[in-house]
Amino acid sequence: MSKLDEIVSLCKRRGFIFPGSEVYGGFAGTWDFGPLGVILKKKIMDEWWKFFVENRDDMYGVDAAILMNPLVWKASGHTATFADPLVECKECKSRFRADKIADGINESVSSEEFWNLHVKCPVCGKENWGPIRKFNMMFSTHVGAVLPDDDAELSEKSVAYLRPETAQGIFVNYKNVVDTFYPTIPFGLAQQGKAFRNEISPRDFILRDRECSQMEIEYFVKPSEWEVSFEMLRGLQHEFLENVMGLNASSIHEFEVAPEDRAHYSERTIDFMFDYPNGSEELMGLAYRTDFDLANIARESGKSMEYRDKNTGETYVPHVIEPSIGVERLFLAVLTNAYFEDEVDGASRVVLKLPENLAPYRFCVSPLLKNKPELVEKAQEVYQILRSRYGNVTWDDSGNIGKRYRKQDEIGTPKCVVIDFDTLNDNSVTVRDRDDTSQVRVLISEL
Amino acid sequence: MSKLDEIVSLCKRRGFIFPGSEVYGGFAGTWDFGPLGVILKKKIMDEWWKFFVENRDDMYGVDAAILMNPLVWKASGHTATFADPLVECKECKSRFRADKIADGINESVSSEEFWNLHVKCPVCGKENWGPIRKFNMMFSTHVGAVLPDDDAELSEKSVAYLRPETAQGIFVNYKNVVDTFYPTIPFGLAQQGKAFRNEISPRDFILRDRECSQMEIEYFVKPSEWEVSFEMLRGLQHEFLENVMGLNASSIHEFEVAPEDRAHYSERTIDFMFDYPNGSEELMGLAYRTDFDLANIARESGKSMEYRDKNTGETYVPHVIEPSIGVERLFLAVLTNAYFEDEVDGASRVVLKLPENLAPYRFCVSPLLKNKPELVEKAQEVYQILRSRYGNVTWDDSGNIGKRYRKQDEIGTPKCVVIDFDTLNDNSVTVRDRDDTSQVRVLISEL
Repeated sequence: MSKLDEIVSLCKRRGFIFPGSEVYGGFAGTWDFGPLGVILKKKIMDEWWKFFVENRDDMYGVDAAILMNPLVWKASGHTATFADPLVECKECKSRFRADKIADGINESVSSEEFWNLHVKCPVCGKENWGPIRKFNMMFSTHVGAVLPDDDAELSEKSVAYLRPETAQGIFVNYKNVVDTFYPTIPFGLAQQGKAFRNEISPRDFILRDRECSQMEIEYFVKPSEWEVSFEMLRGLQHEFLENVMGLNASSIHEFEVAPEDRAHYSERTIDFMFDYPNGSEELMGLAYRTDFDLANIARESGKSMEYRDKNTGETYVPHVIEPSIGVERLFLAVLTNAYFEDEVDGASRVVLKLPENLAPYRFCVSPLLKNKPELVEKAQEVYQILRSRYGNVTWDDSGNIGKRYRKQDEIGTPKCVVIDFDTLNDNSVTVRDRDDTSQVRVLISEL
Repeated sequence: MSKLDEIVSLCKRRGFIFPGSEVYGGFAGTWDFGPLGVILKKKIMDEWWKFFVENRDDMYGVDAAILMNPLVWKASGHTATFADPLVECKECKSRFRADKIADGINESVSSEEFWNLHVKCPVCGKENWGPIRKFNMMFSTHVGAVLPDDDAELSEKSVAYLRPETAQGIFVNYKNVVDTFYPTIPFGLAQQGKAFRNEISPRDFILRDRECSQMEIEYFVKPSEWEVSFEMLRGLQHEFLENVMGLNASSIHEFEVAPEDRAHYSERTIDFMFDYPNGSEELMGLAYRTDFDLANIARESGKSMEYRDKNTGETYVPHVIEPSIGVERLFLAVLTNAYFEDEVDGASRVVLKLPENLAPYRFCVSPLLKNKPELVEKAQEVYQILRSRYGNVTWDDSGNIGKRYRKQDEIGTPKCVVIDFDTLNDNSVTVRDRDDTSQVRVLISEL
């Protein structure tokens, strides 16, 4: 098995991530977080929120609805251009994203260019392609009392979209926040929330799913001073990824996106690439979006997006720096970074060396033997003490002690605390370390 | 203004909740949380999670995708029956939910019954109604590479729904959790997440919106023992609402739903009603769902949903008790409970008497005068100390001290800490209490 397959298997076996709707055979591009996945995901999101919002004076949180006025996507350009090149095999009717089944072409490939490559259909092996068509990746729905047999005009009027990015949920609230909090520039609006993209071919586990959670900041700056904030945020990303998420600095690579490859709204973009099991992939992006979004909103809404500097009296439309990260991409980076296979006493084991602040459980408490009531009782006592002190603590009295260690290794629990007969005499317990498997005796009072 | 209008106004003025997509004139039934709303919402959700999941051994978290396999909604009955009675005025073409514009009818009203009531159209005042039609409240979309001009069959096959409840996201994961964690019955699966309903007429602020966050537990029990768990969960709800959320017990009323009014899957339901500003409304529900959902899944998926008791060896399909609460409903209950208007020194004020664990900020720190650098510096010092000790602390040096107090009262900050010239000499500060407006001198070290 590849390392990615090993991680997918671990995620399912230990209850981190299950395929979405699995009991019905699944639903492509969706994934469900199980009991341990929920804890890890929540810790990742809470650490981000604490680091970028709670602990800072220049950040404000927002949480916008997923369903937004369709004008948002007209203004942002998504309705017209948020599309992938779709091609259909006329033999077997399979559909593909053209730039994913042929090399050396990009999203704006023309039918002729694609045909000239003489690609064979990955499903039936023949070469008989229809034209390239633009496939908009936004999921659309109808909002309001519209019935299936309503005429096209009425039906068209009710179309709305699941937001394909969280960024616009921030931009539409820029003015409301400025008018209620009078923040001093530079300042950021931060949001965590879901975004949806109708990927033609979802793949690579949670890397390219149809539904994901994003954590984004739109940082509003004085146009002439954008570079200072850009560098500040660039440094903060490294600090967060390396010191808070515990990712190896050597697995993170900055990639300066060339002008011709940047999104149309960006004057500078750095992709933070991470060494995933299947190769280097984008973990997050840092983009200088200029006044692209606020100017679009001003134009479509007819409202001024100007900011008035309280000190100098200057007014201008702020420019924006956007650090954007996907929770699932970060989740997989954290797992990739933590996943090791090694040997203990001649037997191979899988271990998740998660940092202490992210491990689903900080401690596992268990009685050496589960059929000795005095050990179970004492262990329960220790369990309750640690739990009230640290929160996430787990209990395990299944199988034998070796099996319990293997299980806790696989879910990343840093310390296993074992209560044995000596504990009853001297109130000391065995504390076993996940990473080096060493065992020490510690007094309960000193845990 | 009514009390509800006062609360809506406070929410907007102080950045708790803004209308969704407001810069584009809004989008009916959607609301965006502003900087203070995000904090309060997160605290409410985190307290629920801590109380019902983290602090308990019998609960497991899950977090399922919003987009699910359509078989989920076929099995649950939503595709066929999750519908409201829609009626159209043939004069002005306005559409309404029939049971909301006439008294004494319910959702299953027939056309004849409705016509016989001789209701006038709330928009044009005439009486010329079309037939009652069933309007399914699920938002539908198309998932996968389907194009607008595809034939009806292909298009139909790709239909999926935004989940109208989070419960099914739990039920589809029941088997995966049982197979990976071997929980001892009774046990619960808990989830927080978004649900979507295409309300014909969204109204009452965040009480009846099109997009809401739910917090639900499906608690799996041995069928013969359901009543014990039902009572246990009933008690826990009161404890949570009254002791953790701080709601007045006298504002919460249990309403035993009569058999003929219960949802078809329920053998017993208690609605927890709350005295909202506009009257008593459902805050949460506690329902005994029997094996309705697991039996549906077993039938549609062909997979066994049986649970095997580790101690007795018995096998059976568990029954389910479901406590379900909407975050926005709870948010509004918390605000309603905290909102007071009173008089201070002859002037009226608005105050949010939020419990300490929910107030967006625990302390507000400010210098008596903002143009005295020595006061500002000292105040910043105190601000940093409190912040590192308590987290959510805010800074305010705007306007005069009286205005700052009013503002902090309105956002529910329990204590204002003011640094004045005496502070520079004796390291004492004024601590002003939100609720009784009393002021005491306290040493910085004793804050």
